[in-house]
Amino acid sequence: MAEFSVIGKPFPRIDAKAKAMGDAKYTADMRLPGMLYGKVLRSPFPHARIRQIETARAKGLTGVRAVITAADTPKIKYGLVVDDELPLCDDRVRYVGDEVAAVAAIDRDTAEEALDLIEVEYEELPAVFDPEEALRPGAPVLHEQFPNNVASHLNFERGDIEAGLREAAVVLEETFRTQCHHQYYMENVAALANWSEGKLTIWCPLQFLEIPRQLLAKALNLRLSDIRMIQAYVGGGFGGKLDQKLPVVTALLALKSRRPVLCEHTREEEMQAARPRVPMIIRLKMGARKDGVITAKDTQIIADNGAYSNWAQGILSTAATRVDSAYRYRNIRTDAKLVYTNKTPTGAFRGFGNPQITFAVGSMIDMLARELGIDPAEMHRKNATQTGDVTAHGWVINSCGLTECIDRALERIGWPAKRQQKTFGRGLGVACAIHVSGNRIIGDYDGSAAFVKLNEDGRANVICGEGEIGQGANTIFAQIAAEELGVRYEDVDMSVADTDVTPFALGAWATRVTAIGGNGVRMAARDAKRQLLEAAAEKLEANPDDLVIREGVISVKGLPGRSLTVADAVKASMYKKGGTPVIGRGQFSVDTTVQVGKEKFGNIAPAYSFACQVAEVEVNPETGVVKVLRVVAADDLGRALNPLSAEGQVEGGVVQGLGYALCEELVFEDGRVLEPMEYEVPTAWLAPNVESILVEPIDPFGPYGAKGTGETPLVPVAAVIANAVCDAVGVRITSLPITPEKIRKALKAKQEAAGR
Amino acid sequence: MAEFSVIGKPFPRIDAKAKAMGDAKYTADMRLPGMLYGKVLRSPFPHARIRQIETARAKGLTGVRAVITAADTPKIKYGLVVDDELPLCDDRVRYVGDEVAAVAAIDRDTAEEALDLIEVEYEELPAVFDPEEALRPGAPVLHEQFPNNVASHLNFERGDIEAGLREAAVVLEETFRTQCHHQYYMENVAALANWSEGKLTIWCPLQFLEIPRQLLAKALNLRLSDIRMIQAYVGGGFGGKLDQKLPVVTALLALKSRRPVLCEHTREEEMQAARPRVPMIIRLKMGARKDGVITAKDTQIIADNGAYSNWAQGILSTAATRVDSAYRYRNIRTDAKLVYTNKTPTGAFRGFGNPQITFAVGSMIDMLARELGIDPAEMHRKNATQTGDVTAHGWVINSCGLTECIDRALERIGWPAKRQQKTFGRGLGVACAIHVSGNRIIGDYDGSAAFVKLNEDGRANVICGEGEIGQGANTIFAQIAAEELGVRYEDVDMSVADTDVTPFALGAWATRVTAIGGNGVRMAARDAKRQLLEAAAEKLEANPDDLVIREGVISVKGLPGRSLTVADAVKASMYKKGGTPVIGRGQFSVDTTVQVGKEKFGNIAPAYSFACQVAEVEVNPETGVVKVLRVVAADDLGRALNPLSAEGQVEGGVVQGLGYALCEELVFEDGRVLEPMEYEVPTAWLAPNVESILVEPIDPFGPYGAKGTGETPLVPVAAVIANAVCDAVGVRITSLPITPEKIRKALKAKQEAAGR
Repeated sequence: MAEFSVIGKPFPRIDAKAKAMGDAKYTADMRLPGMLYGKVLRSPFPHARIRQIETARAKGLTGVRAVITAADTPKIKYGLVVDDELPLCDDRVRYVGDEVAAVAAIDRDTAEEALDLIEVEYEELPAVFDPEEALRPGAPVLHEQFPNNVASHLNFERGDIEAGLREAAVVLEETFRTQCHHQYYMENVAALANWSEGKLTIWCPLQFLEIPRQLLAKALNLRLSDIRMIQAYVGGGFGGKLDQKLPVVTALLALKSRRPVLCEHTREEEMQAARPRVPMIIRLKMGARKDGVITAKDTQIIADNGAYSNWAQGILSTAATRVDSAYRYRNIRTDAKLVYTNKTPTGAFRGFGNPQITFAVGSMIDMLARELGIDPAEMHRKNATQTGDVTAHGWVINSCGLTECIDRALERIGWPAKRQQKTFGRGLGVACAIHVSGNRIIGDYDGSAAFVKLNEDGRANVICGEGEIGQGANTIFAQIAAEELGVRYEDVDMSVADTDVTPFALGAWATRVTAIGGNGVRMAARDAKRQLLEAAAEKLEANPDDLVIREGVISVKGLPGRSLTVADAVKASMYKKGGTPVIGRGQFSVDTTVQVGKEKFGNIAPAYSFACQVAEVEVNPETGVVKVLRVVAADDLGRALNPLSAEGQVEGGVVQGLGYALCEELVFEDGRVLEPMEYEVPTAWLAPNVESILVEPIDPFGPYGAKGTGETPLVPVAAVIANAVCDAVGVRITSLPITPEKIRKALKAKQEAAGR
Repeated sequence: MAEFSVIGKPFPRIDAKAKAMGDAKYTADMRLPGMLYGKVLRSPFPHARIRQIETARAKGLTGVRAVITAADTPKIKYGLVVDDELPLCDDRVRYVGDEVAAVAAIDRDTAEEALDLIEVEYEELPAVFDPEEALRPGAPVLHEQFPNNVASHLNFERGDIEAGLREAAVVLEETFRTQCHHQYYMENVAALANWSEGKLTIWCPLQFLEIPRQLLAKALNLRLSDIRMIQAYVGGGFGGKLDQKLPVVTALLALKSRRPVLCEHTREEEMQAARPRVPMIIRLKMGARKDGVITAKDTQIIADNGAYSNWAQGILSTAATRVDSAYRYRNIRTDAKLVYTNKTPTGAFRGFGNPQITFAVGSMIDMLARELGIDPAEMHRKNATQTGDVTAHGWVINSCGLTECIDRALERIGWPAKRQQKTFGRGLGVACAIHVSGNRIIGDYDGSAAFVKLNEDGRANVICGEGEIGQGANTIFAQIAAEELGVRYEDVDMSVADTDVTPFALGAWATRVTAIGGNGVRMAARDAKRQLLEAAAEKLEANPDDLVIREGVISVKGLPGRSLTVADAVKASMYKKGGTPVIGRGQFSVDTTVQVGKEKFGNIAPAYSFACQVAEVEVNPETGVVKVLRVVAADDLGRALNPLSAEGQVEGGVVQGLGYALCEELVFEDGRVLEPMEYEVPTAWLAPNVESILVEPIDPFGPYGAKGTGETPLVPVAAVIANAVCDAVGVRITSLPITPEKIRKALKAKQEAAGR
């Protein structure tokens, strides 16, 4: 890797020390003079009419500075795609946890006490919890503008599905169900809002700022620029911090009290009223030829949106299309509905709708292979998308390492040998995934911009609003800026995202930050470098094109004696007649296409990542307990700009995927989360040795050939585990999580069927 | 003024409401979690050796978190021009107030208590308080590297001084003395420092950030970029907040305690240990022809630097040269010395060294005119510099409204008529001034840079580090950006100066911000406008050159129907294939010259402001009390970008000048300020009606023809008043302030002389 000085090196995260030492201040650690503490009163009913709210007693409590209800808001509905949400419920609540009122007081105890003094008179309404029931005529309707409870409906066909099914040697049909899965970030959602100097400033750990700012401006009926959002440290996001109600309510409390207000979710609120993963019911019908080539894929999706949409339309769209570009499908038909129910609103979670559909399709490919008597790995390889393909949805695949991922994962685990030594209770599974590096889902902007400012000591400040959410964005950006400028990694500082200062940025979602944000930073650094080299060339009496920068030293190619430090070049640029400080600007834009209408056709991302995972499991047929022995995760992420960070993403994604596959589930009863504090996330005992293989085809788009890898590693895990369990004990679990109970039940049913 | 929409209009200050409503948070209002309060232990002796410092008892006090002495510092001397200062005194103290130790504790009381527990053993040394005495052989030496106590010595001659004196019809010689004058800003100096995440962040009300950051990095032995400085609201600066020790000590306390630390001067500390104006002894010998043309000017200056220099070399240089470009001198000789004494270090104050020398020269011209029997106003007019002149020091005068200033000021006050109705006890005075708009004094950079970022609601953020110190810089910048972009004044937001985010900026001194900073902002706004017009042109199917923007609407020239809001153009730029957010960058540089060596020759500023003031006073010959009846201040400031703000500067400058002329003085006794809390600043009774006349020659350099006017109005006041007093009662007061006592004494001496 002599080609690069900084890129491709396993630097520790730029914020690792601050986080490990407790030096990083999260939102809940912040204090402002005169700051109040806010609390939210939530609906105890899944569906009810609000007859009356009496706040006088709460307002009268000593230490209370503001009590707000919908009456204190402009009552403007807002939402990312459809406007279905109010900051505080007006005449109706639609889920247990819905925001009814809020209080700001001089301390948390007083705020909580005040909540108890707010009297709300409800009239309970019939509720619906099951999305299939919600679709039936006569079901309770959540939003008048959606009389069938359908928040989104996609329907499209590519090729000729009937011909494809006719061409198949085998056609299978199955229904898969995925659960409600919580992001379970370590840091609870919090927000600090301050209305001061005619401006509302909000510090919060959202994954991006600009879109929430737009929504907030709409909901609060403020001008966009009246709001300044500053990203605080994010203690885990995983999609869950794309959309949160709390900053909106906190802002309202600050506006009302004219004091700084801090709000923080309790863990119970996180489980009941945050935005967990959209559960889906997926009916899949697929056919394949004898040789394993897939001939047809017919999909029906019913997605459970809970009470409000926000990001869920995009998630449905992802589930309806994403996996289709991993394979060379010709005949596809999809019908997908997003359905309101009186439950916690669901939303974005690492992988978006992709883990749901990949669980179904990855399981189905395995089923087809077994039916055809061929190696499922072979079936993945045979159908795999290749570099140069334009997929069924019009995606342009400029780099694809999927086949290499499959080959290297199989090789690492010793696939053929292991498959031959088959013993009952031990099994191997394989599945694949595709994911985007960026996505034109919000409006039709996709790009990134940054400034790079050089200091007289030769160090650089990158001013960029993409934001760090714990995924390592700032580490990658610092590496890119360092590489481009020719300075050391330690000599780059990253700004925090701040809507008043950092250029407009779409932020951390759709695995877009490295590929798209990275290009913005790279352009800004290049622009700064040009200024630097011009100044250095004058000093060194050389042509700027003949200069190279390495480790902070600028020298004339081939003349090692003629050199100048970057620090001196910054000074040389500035300290002269007509001199200026070195400030670079990058404005990078992506030439992709917004998917047009319901047809969802067009190249949505500038690059695509691929993955193949194989796992070996041991299933105890008595208890149903699955022990994951090994997971080999091969990820095509283009060039790995920081292998240490990439491997961290892979390991984290696999373990979070194992939670999705095996144990995590928000179980609802009459709209209430059962035992929210007993939610089971993977702990050390569940986490196996994750072996990461980085497959690095150089992508023509991404900076230095990089693509994103934040979400891909989670996507195939559930299918891999389902396939491995089936391989181990012969039962196909089609709903997540794959609990011991489900395995025991399936084994029992199988025995009974065999016994008959 | 149909030419402009925003420029030239009397908009209220952008921060007026926040300041008036108490919404603006100053440094001392800030709080950080875990914050400590710091206090400084100061020397009670003007000159002493530190034998020993015992801090154990202070450290042992409950609530004390850090006690620091020089032993806790790298002991690196620093300074702007010469390195003569340590953050904390090592083995010697050099003035009453010198920083010896500091404490950080959980509250102010504890910190103060801890100060009392620090035991310092001093050995008193002979001290010197008078600069003339300090020059004598055998005088106590303050700094070994300056064995004669001379911190700076300038000596130069232009033309032929002896020939000039021979050519004169009259030659007068006089010694003028100016006092130590305190800036008396409303907000005491404060600093908040936090060492966190490997970075030292300092919030403070300094007038600029980058140079103090360089000095701090040197003093603390840190890398420049390890320090982030953020400008807090500045509650008045007037030069006094260019250089302060407190941020350095606060930083040391934060480094030691690893906690945020807030320090704030008491008013007593302000008076004893801040950086008041450099007092000067000026021996002036001037000759003039019969017609009033000045033929020679021979100047000797002895400036009292107090114990440490920092900005004083530049102040001496200003005193030695500035006034020479107001008039068409041909023969000049100057010898100027800056001398250390064991008193409070003196430094920058509105006007720099210019009010001192202008008091002397303005008085002398009046004396010459009286001697020659001509109208002093006529003498100013006759010698006045004109547009197109290159002055004796090589200054290039591209616009000069001095003659117009003289004419209009005289006309307004009714000069000839009033002079004819002469009565004893009433008098008229006149004097003139020149000042720079920018100055190459620090290194050889002079320029400014900014970013302008447009929001989707059509509003703009100007990201600029020049800083607002109460002078109205942000108001002017917002107007410039609004004018250039074609949006409303209210639609521009200003950033705060922040070394991690805002481009390198020299900040608020030398009246440079409007002219130089304004051009930086203008270029950035223009760059943003270009991007905006390109996007709009595409939408409107027009040529960008055919578009105009007014009040946030872009329209095609001559086709009023074809239009688009700026908000929509921002969106149009971004929300398209290949679209980008609108982010402008401006890098503006000034093509002036650094004055070379001791000769001080060269064009130091891109533009020069001029002023003429006339005043009418009433002097009570019994009491000596001067009542200022009227001041007419005519200021050539180029185009007045905001007349309201400009007039505010003029009125404030004149009143501050009246304090300088009539009452303000820090009186020292054995190095101690006498009655520091009785320092007398002008109050309403002293302040006359100040009539401001804005003379607006369009300057080719400044934005829209503007020049600076922050300092000029203070410069001539003392001479005007001295001349008016002389005109009223026939006595010439040659030392400031012109107190009733001095007038009484002079009148008495005159009577006695007449009686003899």
